[in-house]
Amino acid sequence: MINIGAQISPNSPSSHYHQTTTEDSLRRALAAKQSTIDASGTAIRQLKSSGAPKSEIDEAVKALNALKLEKTSIENQLKASISGQTINGSGISRDEFRQAVVNTLERRLFYIPAFKIYRGVAGLYDYGPPGCAVKSNVLAFWRQHFVLEEDMLEVDCPCVTPEVVLKASGHVEKFTDLMVKDEKTGNCYRADHLLKDFCKDKLESDLTMSADKAAEFKHVLAVLDDLSGEQLGAKIKEYGIVAPDTKNPLSDPYPFNLMFQTQIGPSGASTGYMRPETAQGIFVNFRDLYYYNGNKLPFAAAQIGQAFRNEISPRQGLLRVREFTLAEIEHFVDPDDKSHPKYSEVSDLEFLMFPRDEQMSGQSAKKLCLGEAVSKGIVNNQTLAYFIGRVYQFLTRLGIDKKRLRFRQHLPNEMAHYAADCWDAEIESSYGWIECVGIADRSAYDLRAHTDKSGVALVAQEKFAEPIEVEKLVIAPVKKELGLAFKGSQKMVVEALEAMNEKEAMDIKAALETKGEVEFEVCTLQKTVTIKKNMVTIAKEIKKEHQRVFTPSVIEPSFGIGRIIYCLYEHCFYMRPSKAGDEQLNVFRFPSLVAPIKCTVFPLVQNQKYEEVAKQISRSLTAAGISNKKDITGTSIGKRYARTDELGVPYAVTVDSTSSVTIRERDSKDQIRVKVDEVAAVIKDVSEERCKWADILQKYPLHTSASADE
Amino acid sequence: MINIGAQISPNSPSSHYHQTTTEDSLRRALAAKQSTIDASGTAIRQLKSSGAPKSEIDEAVKALNALKLEKTSIENQLKASISGQTINGSGISRDEFRQAVVNTLERRLFYIPAFKIYRGVAGLYDYGPPGCAVKSNVLAFWRQHFVLEEDMLEVDCPCVTPEVVLKASGHVEKFTDLMVKDEKTGNCYRADHLLKDFCKDKLESDLTMSADKAAEFKHVLAVLDDLSGEQLGAKIKEYGIVAPDTKNPLSDPYPFNLMFQTQIGPSGASTGYMRPETAQGIFVNFRDLYYYNGNKLPFAAAQIGQAFRNEISPRQGLLRVREFTLAEIEHFVDPDDKSHPKYSEVSDLEFLMFPRDEQMSGQSAKKLCLGEAVSKGIVNNQTLAYFIGRVYQFLTRLGIDKKRLRFRQHLPNEMAHYAADCWDAEIESSYGWIECVGIADRSAYDLRAHTDKSGVALVAQEKFAEPIEVEKLVIAPVKKELGLAFKGSQKMVVEALEAMNEKEAMDIKAALETKGEVEFEVCTLQKTVTIKKNMVTIAKEIKKEHQRVFTPSVIEPSFGIGRIIYCLYEHCFYMRPSKAGDEQLNVFRFPSLVAPIKCTVFPLVQNQKYEEVAKQISRSLTAAGISNKKDITGTSIGKRYARTDELGVPYAVTVDSTSSVTIRERDSKDQIRVKVDEVAAVIKDVSEERCKWADILQKYPLHTSASADE
Repeated sequence: MINIGAQISPNSPSSHYHQTTTEDSLRRALAAKQSTIDASGTAIRQLKSSGAPKSEIDEAVKALNALKLEKTSIENQLKASISGQTINGSGISRDEFRQAVVNTLERRLFYIPAFKIYRGVAGLYDYGPPGCAVKSNVLAFWRQHFVLEEDMLEVDCPCVTPEVVLKASGHVEKFTDLMVKDEKTGNCYRADHLLKDFCKDKLESDLTMSADKAAEFKHVLAVLDDLSGEQLGAKIKEYGIVAPDTKNPLSDPYPFNLMFQTQIGPSGASTGYMRPETAQGIFVNFRDLYYYNGNKLPFAAAQIGQAFRNEISPRQGLLRVREFTLAEIEHFVDPDDKSHPKYSEVSDLEFLMFPRDEQMSGQSAKKLCLGEAVSKGIVNNQTLAYFIGRVYQFLTRLGIDKKRLRFRQHLPNEMAHYAADCWDAEIESSYGWIECVGIADRSAYDLRAHTDKSGVALVAQEKFAEPIEVEKLVIAPVKKELGLAFKGSQKMVVEALEAMNEKEAMDIKAALETKGEVEFEVCTLQKTVTIKKNMVTIAKEIKKEHQRVFTPSVIEPSFGIGRIIYCLYEHCFYMRPSKAGDEQLNVFRFPSLVAPIKCTVFPLVQNQKYEEVAKQISRSLTAAGISNKKDITGTSIGKRYARTDELGVPYAVTVDSTSSVTIRERDSKDQIRVKVDEVAAVIKDVSEERCKWADILQKYPLHTSASADE
Repeated sequence: MINIGAQISPNSPSSHYHQTTTEDSLRRALAAKQSTIDASGTAIRQLKSSGAPKSEIDEAVKALNALKLEKTSIENQLKASISGQTINGSGISRDEFRQAVVNTLERRLFYIPAFKIYRGVAGLYDYGPPGCAVKSNVLAFWRQHFVLEEDMLEVDCPCVTPEVVLKASGHVEKFTDLMVKDEKTGNCYRADHLLKDFCKDKLESDLTMSADKAAEFKHVLAVLDDLSGEQLGAKIKEYGIVAPDTKNPLSDPYPFNLMFQTQIGPSGASTGYMRPETAQGIFVNFRDLYYYNGNKLPFAAAQIGQAFRNEISPRQGLLRVREFTLAEIEHFVDPDDKSHPKYSEVSDLEFLMFPRDEQMSGQSAKKLCLGEAVSKGIVNNQTLAYFIGRVYQFLTRLGIDKKRLRFRQHLPNEMAHYAADCWDAEIESSYGWIECVGIADRSAYDLRAHTDKSGVALVAQEKFAEPIEVEKLVIAPVKKELGLAFKGSQKMVVEALEAMNEKEAMDIKAALETKGEVEFEVCTLQKTVTIKKNMVTIAKEIKKEHQRVFTPSVIEPSFGIGRIIYCLYEHCFYMRPSKAGDEQLNVFRFPSLVAPIKCTVFPLVQNQKYEEVAKQISRSLTAAGISNKKDITGTSIGKRYARTDELGVPYAVTVDSTSSVTIRERDSKDQIRVKVDEVAAVIKDVSEERCKWADILQKYPLHTSASADE
């Protein structure tokens, strides 16, 4: 995708349209309450100075104190409305919730700041063992769900990319963010971030701000992504924003290219970049892939790989990083036929959609049937809709909460001019709604750009069953006559004549036939010349055509894998009290599909016989391809369950005899008793979702003995 | 690994020790034959000038012609011995064989030069759909065979790496190749490549070269990797080697760092590199991973990912590239105990090994039992041997021919000074023996280097069951007295005293006790000072220690995935005549495990009913997780089989009725008849190697009808 910046902008403009109503009325109530308090204060002073009786003054003071309490209550409501939204009505704020998730993730090495022993590098993270396993499960499912089921052509291209490719795609010129520098220290900041932080901070800290002023700051936040460098600079000046660390003045905003630049080869003559997306590797291979597909459309190519963006000042943990894994699909389709053969398999799906009109009119996302959205023209075409549906299935199968997933249509000003339609899968997290998948109909833009730059035609052919006759405009400048008349300017005149569209040409033809000559504007000469009848022939001819040659349209679903995984962590995380009730325990309710380890195996007590059985079960699980871990430490069984819950392991086998063992399910904490030699088969069935835990519960006796319990 | 250059050097020194005997004797025979011919020519001229009878002269000329024929025959044998070795006695030369493989690979998009429409970039390749599938299968099996079965901790670290990390590892200083420049055009060449090409060319083109001269060139080739810049430059001058393209003179060799350099962040103050290996990401995380493993040794961490080397002038296709996938394991182990609990599972394996002694004495690789190699001290320790065995199992399961796989021990001059032992898995290809996996015992080098640079102790602890008593040397300088005596130099004297080893300290102690003072050399002051009895106390004390703190050793198996895959392509490729015998057809005999597609589905003829059955079978295969492809083109069934054989697809289902279909095995071309609803299960069993094709042949009727035949 070259819809520059779209993939990397987690705060879509529309996310500011919400919560506004409550907040506004609270701000108004607060202002009203303050006036009442002020008036009441004045009245009390007057009472005092006029020597009113003490009882009257006491009464008035009591009323004033009651007003102040009411004000505090409104202030608290307002604060909560601005920033402290709670998660799922759990009573803990978004920030507290995020802190709990992130602490668990870092402590259990789901991810860690990269190069930590050297104090790290902003925007670079390592996936530790459980994070790495989750990522590898997500990618394996992506391959199954998209590449295998949709018969896509997967490719694997280098990250190091020569400049010419990224010039063609537009990245060298346009893949920039606006930056300002501390004029004294040279420290760099993203201009829009400074303005955003300023506005948010004002809204959060100044509760007595007028509703008008609040509306102004909100408007700035809403249009932030559309502001030009000049506009951003003007706002920064207007608000007196200075460098956050030093309070020094800031430079005007200027563009900084986000690609990591390098040199290919030793000569220093060949500039390269680390790819900012994987898509270009597919586009430049279109011709070979089309041939590989038997010269047939539609077909899709896919690529999973690293992409790189040299962010100015990365924040938001895993959501804005300098290196990340993308999974991208480029579906090539005839622009005249964007139907999809498997459309009916998704057209009945219903989920939260957030069309353009709803965003513009300040409404919120609503549940729509995908098929209806297409038939009403809300979604541009079947193929785009098919991928929206498949993305919905993909994300919800991973464990994304469908109530916190919406498909938001790009507003006209967000889309590139060539795009036909674009929808983002946005997932709600503690940071707000995060764009995790972009699904865009990019028309023929990318293939045309590379055709122009490389001189290699990236086109498709449709052979007609029967040759068809077409009327074609033929413009034939008579170069000899034009040369005599225009000498050195001849070439420009010829080009201008040949570039006429049908209407212009037919007008000129008519004029030449009636008047013998005509005035003709040549833009490249910036003047009008006189064209005579002998200088050009214009005609319509009937030609037989055997095939149609055209540039395919591209429908591009582009997945930010790290963002999806982070949102998944938040959606799967919960806390529950320990059995003794003295502490809160962390759990990730990962579906088996993504769980980093499917099963842990514990001997109930340290005992050679039990350990031998545990080893045997672990071996049989490994042989069946089920990732598992033994925990033979002497820690209490309750602590070991808690440890494994915190990694999101769905099943735990506890060895408390040499013939049969218990299997415990993570979320229900139900336990069943199973014979040792059946364990691997049961775990395999249930963890590969060939049967449900509820069915297993029917087949095996429930284990209720206190001994193996938490 | 930081055994710089090892991973990237496909021509190990030892590869030149071979074939020498035959070649030498042929050169000698050729020289002898030439002398005989010369002598015979002289004799004929004498006969002619002395007016000998015509019959005698004719006889002599006839003998001379016979000699010339014999000479030509020796020349041909010599040429073949130098370059044109045949593959598997097939009668085609290595170059022809390679050309056939590479043509097939590029035509079927296993791989293609990257950015081809822009004329490509040397050393960058794309994997097209089948290549991408093979790679993904190889990596999935690697994860199963190593990470899952060995319970390794997999991590995933960024490619962008800050300079400090690669300074600590030594890459910034030492990761270089020697380069020469064309003094007029500035074109760059690898110095050793030019010298190598020169020597090889001489040996191949000058068949009449003396055996001594040939031995000299061979010696240069053998020691090429050990030559310093000065030595290389001297040889280039001595042989008069010039720039190959322009014949211009060349500069002296100088080092070029092979890392792609870039800037992290916008300030320009933070240099970064694209990682040249994945290992460093593991080392810098040692502390967290050790903790994650419950502070227990041994354990292994693993990483799969891209690595980058800015080669000066990449050649040899997929074998020497600028970006490639590495899979690396770092197994951390107590240096005092390198036994391995699963050693007995591999100790009986027998395969080709090429120990140091055999290489030095000019012998060739020989079959050894791994256990014996350890007990004889050929392989340094059990853990190293265990990984050698596991690598052998891994490569042969993929389809690498065990007769063309050897484990070659590094010669002393190839290993870094700190390495305890190092073995390369080398695979024979048309390019010679290629280093594909390096398995090194790197001792404590890497963890120590990062401990020193970061100040964070990357160490392990061993808690003693009982505290043990150790005698410790205690040196206590008396600072007050030293200050009075040495004033400003006091600090240096104190440090020198504290730095004494046990013997020095006990000598000083004895001298002080007998003489009351002693002369003591302080290196940092570059002079000797007088130390008196009251200035220092030296004693041995008994202390209790509860644990041992040490830096673990690292055993590192490092896999060049692209090289393994390329060698696999060569080992799996063969040609066989078409049924009509009029052409040679290409086949890849990939095991199912790595085959890019497991099964193709063909309707025998174009027919709606058959196509419906084909679709149904394809769907059931997909649902079972088996990658498959339908081919519903009207091409003859023989052509479609040939197409699918060329992709290495092991099984083809041909629909010739609506109730039962045929399944054809690729290499035997055997066909069986199976009911439609059993197809997916049969293909799954056989392609996941749960049963053998031979067993399937017993169960289902052989199909022999000519209709579905090639």
